[in-house]
Amino acid sequence: MLRDPSTKYRPFPQVDLPDRQWPSQTITRAPRWLSTDMRDGNQALIDPMDAEKKTRFFDLLVKVGIKEIEVGFPSAGATEFDFISSLIRNGRVPKDVTVQVLTQSRRDLIEKSFEALEGAPTAIVHLYNAVSPAWRRIVFGMSRDEVREIAITGAKILRDEAGKRPDTDWRFEYSPETFSTAELDFSVEVCAAVMDVLRPTPEKPLILNLPATVEAASPNVYADQIEWFCRNVPNRDSVVISLHPHNDRGTGVAAAELGLMAGADRVEGCLFGNGERTGNCDLVTLALNMYTQGVDPGLDFSNIDEVINTVEYCNQLPVHPRHPYAGELVFTAFSGSHQDAIKKGFAAQAQRNDGLWDVPYLPIDPADLGRDYEAVIRVNSQSGKGGVAWVLEQDKGLKLPKRMQADFSRHVQRVADETSRELNAADIWGAFEAAYLPGAGDRFELVDYTERHGAAGQARTFVGELRLDGETRSISGKGNGLLSSLLSALRDDCGIDLDVVDYSEHAIGNGSDAQAAAYLECTLPDGTRVFGAGIDADVATATVRAALSAANRVAA
Amino acid sequence: MLRDPSTKYRPFPQVDLPDRQWPSQTITRAPRWLSTDMRDGNQALIDPMDAEKKTRFFDLLVKVGIKEIEVGFPSAGATEFDFISSLIRNGRVPKDVTVQVLTQSRRDLIEKSFEALEGAPTAIVHLYNAVSPAWRRIVFGMSRDEVREIAITGAKILRDEAGKRPDTDWRFEYSPETFSTAELDFSVEVCAAVMDVLRPTPEKPLILNLPATVEAASPNVYADQIEWFCRNVPNRDSVVISLHPHNDRGTGVAAAELGLMAGADRVEGCLFGNGERTGNCDLVTLALNMYTQGVDPGLDFSNIDEVINTVEYCNQLPVHPRHPYAGELVFTAFSGSHQDAIKKGFAAQAQRNDGLWDVPYLPIDPADLGRDYEAVIRVNSQSGKGGVAWVLEQDKGLKLPKRMQADFSRHVQRVADETSRELNAADIWGAFEAAYLPGAGDRFELVDYTERHGAAGQARTFVGELRLDGETRSISGKGNGLLSSLLSALRDDCGIDLDVVDYSEHAIGNGSDAQAAAYLECTLPDGTRVFGAGIDADVATATVRAALSAANRVAA
Repeated sequence: MLRDPSTKYRPFPQVDLPDRQWPSQTITRAPRWLSTDMRDGNQALIDPMDAEKKTRFFDLLVKVGIKEIEVGFPSAGATEFDFISSLIRNGRVPKDVTVQVLTQSRRDLIEKSFEALEGAPTAIVHLYNAVSPAWRRIVFGMSRDEVREIAITGAKILRDEAGKRPDTDWRFEYSPETFSTAELDFSVEVCAAVMDVLRPTPEKPLILNLPATVEAASPNVYADQIEWFCRNVPNRDSVVISLHPHNDRGTGVAAAELGLMAGADRVEGCLFGNGERTGNCDLVTLALNMYTQGVDPGLDFSNIDEVINTVEYCNQLPVHPRHPYAGELVFTAFSGSHQDAIKKGFAAQAQRNDGLWDVPYLPIDPADLGRDYEAVIRVNSQSGKGGVAWVLEQDKGLKLPKRMQADFSRHVQRVADETSRELNAADIWGAFEAAYLPGAGDRFELVDYTERHGAAGQARTFVGELRLDGETRSISGKGNGLLSSLLSALRDDCGIDLDVVDYSEHAIGNGSDAQAAAYLECTLPDGTRVFGAGIDADVATATVRAALSAANRVAA
Repeated sequence: MLRDPSTKYRPFPQVDLPDRQWPSQTITRAPRWLSTDMRDGNQALIDPMDAEKKTRFFDLLVKVGIKEIEVGFPSAGATEFDFISSLIRNGRVPKDVTVQVLTQSRRDLIEKSFEALEGAPTAIVHLYNAVSPAWRRIVFGMSRDEVREIAITGAKILRDEAGKRPDTDWRFEYSPETFSTAELDFSVEVCAAVMDVLRPTPEKPLILNLPATVEAASPNVYADQIEWFCRNVPNRDSVVISLHPHNDRGTGVAAAELGLMAGADRVEGCLFGNGERTGNCDLVTLALNMYTQGVDPGLDFSNIDEVINTVEYCNQLPVHPRHPYAGELVFTAFSGSHQDAIKKGFAAQAQRNDGLWDVPYLPIDPADLGRDYEAVIRVNSQSGKGGVAWVLEQDKGLKLPKRMQADFSRHVQRVADETSRELNAADIWGAFEAAYLPGAGDRFELVDYTERHGAAGQARTFVGELRLDGETRSISGKGNGLLSSLLSALRDDCGIDLDVVDYSEHAIGNGSDAQAAAYLECTLPDGTRVFGAGIDADVATATVRAALSAANRVAA
């Protein structure tokens, strides 16, 4: 058993903010996006990216539309330094994209960071030190004053190094690391001390990044922290408030959303939520959440599969089948009632034609992400008639009448129960063939037929040549049309008495290759219902085949 | 490019609840848990579970401590019906566990559901119909009154069927399906109508389950909806408010947490967030989030790997490496600074000995989930000396002095850069051997040695037999101890002048198998620093080996 947690873990303290405003806010515009895939994401990979993978990832981020990219930790080693430096020297950074590098607050590391960025027209140097009591006590053994001093010292080196290198437009970011588990007043105090050194202005603001280094509370607490910070930081208009949520409690995206409502301007995260441990905030989900609320995220995921492929290749980690918007299964309905609702939604959408998306169970149009509708409805033992009919229509162009859908779904259900796996379109077509189309074991097989028309208003005569129980045999009957004359032939010559309840026929495809599909629903004298289907290049022959198909169901 | 979303998607309307109370609440006790793994989870699987898998899953849920289990949809087919019925008949349901089945509001389906539960001492029949405007318009083509009537009709059948079968203690659950996208007043109206039929009491309450069938807004909106509903539903004390969040926006866990703060009593979800599309609310994360706040969830995940294995087997879907609490990587730190902080955290934890968990980067003690600490620190090119030293200590029992850790980490860094992949314990041991232990190419190799002690206070004499540059040779030197006499032999006979800066030695293991490890840090006359290490069953010999190891570094 899990031990009693109350002896080992403590509840996270609430923020005293009874007049909080964020719960009444909404997100009405996109934040500034910072991808830390190549830094926080990369450092958490089993196999960190080599230069080739880093380059691919960088190009992908640019293509997606990210304008601020943290490319690494130049002081961490020669490989990292060389990659960053070559990125800039090789002109791979577009004019409207700013690279950012991370550094601890030590002179040699900061100098190395500036060196790596030499030649960049603009760049962000991101300074951090941990400020929370656990880190002060456990990791550093330092007082508040000493920790604040680390930040001030770093800020002074930033200021001085920037002064020595006037060819680059230097921007600064400061992270009071472990912000979410630190005392709010101390975080503000340290940030204010950094601001005193760097003297940001509304025109040239300082980015203050407020990390949930480890997600330690429900997302509303993070929002409270952000709102408290925004209210209490001096010169709010001279700082850009940036969020950096992690996902240890599975609520990183929520934390970012509520944090934006609480006043933040910018979000740091990774595509599909890569990053240390449980990952950083997932920028794809966050952006597409905005998109589905009518807010343009400014990021382009219209070819989501390309993004997935590149990220999976570079990170060597999978995107989960249920990952929001991106997973293989997230547009898929297996359940019959879901499938029916989705079909009706598509139909209503087409009819309304107002451009607004409103389809049950699909919060986003898969086409907006470059996905087609094929994967939307898939069939297993939980599926109903609607899904089966949809697949048959998508795959073979067959539009089964409603009651025949129900009849056919029983055939499919049997196959699904027997195989105990998902059925693909071929399986469903196979079930359809076995259920209705000519095959071994059928009593009646059409060889040929002729139809004699009498004068207008007079009866027609059907003469059919059949293989019946293995022998060729001729049958004939009269009626006022093809179907009735055929049915009377079956009744009189073969003893099969079918009464037509419903008949329909439609073309499959168009042009000279078009085929006809005919469906027949009949009752027998004892009330039993049988269905038949026929497919032929000729519309009349399709009908004959459908009637014989129904007759074969009786014989079976 | 993604098209302009504002032409296609609309923002979700806010709930008018300016005096909302939930943002000031905390979760102080566990909710009632309902697992719908075998229903909502199962119907979303590519390959739904067969009876063997369902049985395993059911047994797992019981073992974990879930007391209410939705076992399926008995009217969906014979397989489902038979499984549910046999579960009860075979006595597989413990006394304190209640099974629940789902049914649409149709007489034949409801009757089938009651039949399947025959023989159960208690059971929950869960009735649902969709109430939101999109479903009314697109799926049913029905008015509000007609939709409410569906619920009332179903409730009456529930009441009557229960009356006919007095041997079971029947409980009822009603879901106004698609609650989160429905008008709140209409949901209350329909629920109140169902309550009028079923007449719940505080002693025998009705479960009202409020699904986010599709997650369509940020989690604070769901919390507003729940609080609004709790305030406005009649006879609040006669109903159990149940949450059923999905995860389309990646905020299903957050929705459940804020929903509980808003007054809900019960949560429906699946282990690891399986379920339709992006899945249901993940019960594992939600429960362990409570656990890490000192709230006993009443569920047992102390052997998380067993839970993962069973769920992956039954669902045939993976748990992602970054899945909170459960993923392979969520306790892993590759980054050097993280590794250092974690090591210090473990040390402080051991020293404090107050039973409280407070380790940087680890929101939960991996041991509480049955995980060991082995996976906590892993080494790749992003790792620092701390991680490398930790692995060497865990794996080989070697406790390198701090400056030697730094020296060794440079060796490891080189290997990591060269291989560009994660280094395992064997790789690190290999690097250690290559760096410090005797090997091909070493100038000095120990064959044997003797040490002559003089009288107390007098010098000792070291006489060593070495392989030196391939030839056997004897060296000797005097000093006031083993180390100094050996170093003088090296200086006088071999021209290697080592000055000891630091020396340490410790036992590896204990008992007769114990070995000794000695570490030596020396400077050369030019100030160059060299390190040596020696391992031997004999403490003195380990020291000799360490000195020769340092000498070999000079020669190299």
